[in-house]
Amino acid sequence: MTLPSLPPVSRRTLLALSSATALAACASKPTLLIEPGRGSGDLGLVIERESGSIGVLDTTARTRLGTITGLGDLSHASVVFSRDGGRAYVFGRDGALTKVNLITGRIEGRVMQAGNSIGGAISTDGTLVVAQNYQPGGVKVFDARTLEPLADIPAVVDGKASRVVGLADIPRNRFIFSLFDAGQIWIADLADPRKPQLTKFANIGKQPYDALVSPDGRTYIAGLFGEDGLAKMDLWAPQPRVERILPNYGRGEQPLPVFKMPHLRGWSIAGKHAYLPAIGRHEVLIVDTDTWKEVGRIKVAGQPVFVMARPDGRQVWVNFAVPDYDTVQVIDTQTRQIVHSLKPGKAVLHMEFTPRGDAVWISARDDHKVVVVDTQSFKTLAELPARSPSGIFFTSRAARTGF
Amino acid sequence: MTLPSLPPVSRRTLLALSSATALAACASKPTLLIEPGRGSGDLGLVIERESGSIGVLDTTARTRLGTITGLGDLSHASVVFSRDGGRAYVFGRDGALTKVNLITGRIEGRVMQAGNSIGGAISTDGTLVVAQNYQPGGVKVFDARTLEPLADIPAVVDGKASRVVGLADIPRNRFIFSLFDAGQIWIADLADPRKPQLTKFANIGKQPYDALVSPDGRTYIAGLFGEDGLAKMDLWAPQPRVERILPNYGRGEQPLPVFKMPHLRGWSIAGKHAYLPAIGRHEVLIVDTDTWKEVGRIKVAGQPVFVMARPDGRQVWVNFAVPDYDTVQVIDTQTRQIVHSLKPGKAVLHMEFTPRGDAVWISARDDHKVVVVDTQSFKTLAELPARSPSGIFFTSRAARTGF
Repeated sequence: MTLPSLPPVSRRTLLALSSATALAACASKPTLLIEPGRGSGDLGLVIERESGSIGVLDTTARTRLGTITGLGDLSHASVVFSRDGGRAYVFGRDGALTKVNLITGRIEGRVMQAGNSIGGAISTDGTLVVAQNYQPGGVKVFDARTLEPLADIPAVVDGKASRVVGLADIPRNRFIFSLFDAGQIWIADLADPRKPQLTKFANIGKQPYDALVSPDGRTYIAGLFGEDGLAKMDLWAPQPRVERILPNYGRGEQPLPVFKMPHLRGWSIAGKHAYLPAIGRHEVLIVDTDTWKEVGRIKVAGQPVFVMARPDGRQVWVNFAVPDYDTVQVIDTQTRQIVHSLKPGKAVLHMEFTPRGDAVWISARDDHKVVVVDTQSFKTLAELPARSPSGIFFTSRAARTGF
Repeated sequence: MTLPSLPPVSRRTLLALSSATALAACASKPTLLIEPGRGSGDLGLVIERESGSIGVLDTTARTRLGTITGLGDLSHASVVFSRDGGRAYVFGRDGALTKVNLITGRIEGRVMQAGNSIGGAISTDGTLVVAQNYQPGGVKVFDARTLEPLADIPAVVDGKASRVVGLADIPRNRFIFSLFDAGQIWIADLADPRKPQLTKFANIGKQPYDALVSPDGRTYIAGLFGEDGLAKMDLWAPQPRVERILPNYGRGEQPLPVFKMPHLRGWSIAGKHAYLPAIGRHEVLIVDTDTWKEVGRIKVAGQPVFVMARPDGRQVWVNFAVPDYDTVQVIDTQTRQIVHSLKPGKAVLHMEFTPRGDAVWISARDDHKVVVVDTQSFKTLAELPARSPSGIFFTSRAARTGF
């Protein structure tokens, strides 16, 4: 397979070296991927899963600014941003946590914190980074500045370590997560990060496999692999407790094999409705967020994976599992009709909207490109090379809860 | 009156000069207010109205990074940010538009664009900055990079120039605004910025004096000075038109003199309800955003000016006109009760929440300070000196429509 030409990493490195020589008098000033005086609010990154690298993106000029290598196994990698948006914390599947500076293009820290990790979160105040792990299970807490380990929270129930999924930040340096093997939801209060205070909710359902927190930080919903239905918590309630919603949601009703369990973080809440991928069916479900009852279904091109609302909630964009993973469909939330279908490339793995929703950036893994599409005209605005791109993450996430 | 001690601007300048000398080899690199490699996502600024300066703020360290002077008359000044968050466009009441770099601390451009201006907006793609003017009226369009004038849109109806108010950006480089003297709402499509395409709505009501656009960009609401009630437009409708809502909202019902007409941008939408200042009454009104009917009133300490929702919608913070402008009250939106009252300083003029809502920054003009308050514990986290501070603006606004 021939890869498309990539940004001239080696040339960039040479330029950096030559600049460094010319600027020997200011050796303490790192060479920057962006000009000094430029802000970081419109930057982003794309995960290049096979090469263990990330591409740094500029969503204003719609260009790729550079490449940062040496991040290890980035399959299923996820990212959170520092409060200033200048740094990204990359959680690799291999258990590595890497702190990357998007402005200098340098790795500022890296720890192998577990054997198998499934993502992480950052505290509201930006001081704590937390990783959720499959192997050995549990949650680990790090100083966001130094990556010094501050606390280890083994998810042990009845003497058995559980894998942890669905980790999300909630206000006041607290984190919520689900225990796959134990069927529990825990909240860790890290007001004193070296002494986590845990609140545990048992019997929430069999095998929670992923979860989301609503944009306002109020509602936590865990999907269940071991049975149908979902576990929901109202975190604003005086005494939060677990309720079950959507009892038919799950694999039980599917007439088709499930090619990929959809991410719950692919759900989206637009206005008073949540749009979510049906499991194993070619449908997007519409749920009223007041009653948490299903109020409609929309037929789509395949098994949906991500069902993502444009930031204004006017549109919902959907990508699909194999064999339909070259297709993206756009739903108008006012008419509940599909208003556009496009085939931006082979193996569409992820989509990320610009903060005000004028464009969406789509990764097409097997075409080794990121495609930028205007969400109004559906025109392609740019195509940028990337090696097997998967997740795309913009620094505007730093301002949001649950991202 | 003795001013409190301010950050050591002169020492900072000396340090900058000495750094500049030491780094003569890299004279092209400006001295920065922040370290290279730090992002801009947690920066902000405070307007110092009497001294024509702005203070640059760091919301992570809760410090003041520096001062930028020479901005002219900043009474009633407002600010929008570049897409990258590194630059602020400051609209002065004297008609000046100043482009300020928060990272280098430098003024990058300044034009006297009108005789009397009342704020502005920036396009979705960040390329256009637009000012609304009282004198000579109308709207002017500038290149965001160079401040080159691109278009002049005189708001002339029946041969008479109108003052323009309530300007807001809406998707696809369009702007919406209200004509105070003509009683109209106009939408300017700036797809070709040198040839604005105007859509005009007449007879919207007497003397619109301010307006807001909802966070999703869907709803535009103009307040009327010349009569009671409000003009509302659903911009997602196939054929947008003006409707009248809240027919009793206005000065007509007030039993008290109106000390200050509340800003409509002080309204806030939290969940499915809008919270808005009653005019001339010691009340905050609750309006259902489905029906746009009033559904409740909350008694507060004075005539409300800004009624601002914490980003998660759980709390609404209220400040007041004279004589109660030393007070701030906090409403819990779940119970609709006031849960806290505080007196952060004399002449509270503005409040700005950090993006995830953990803190609020409050300007106390006559105490010459900015007070940072924890929104959960209500503890004071920091107090920073500022000369007669008014508006506080954080760079996270760059990611939001209508800000």
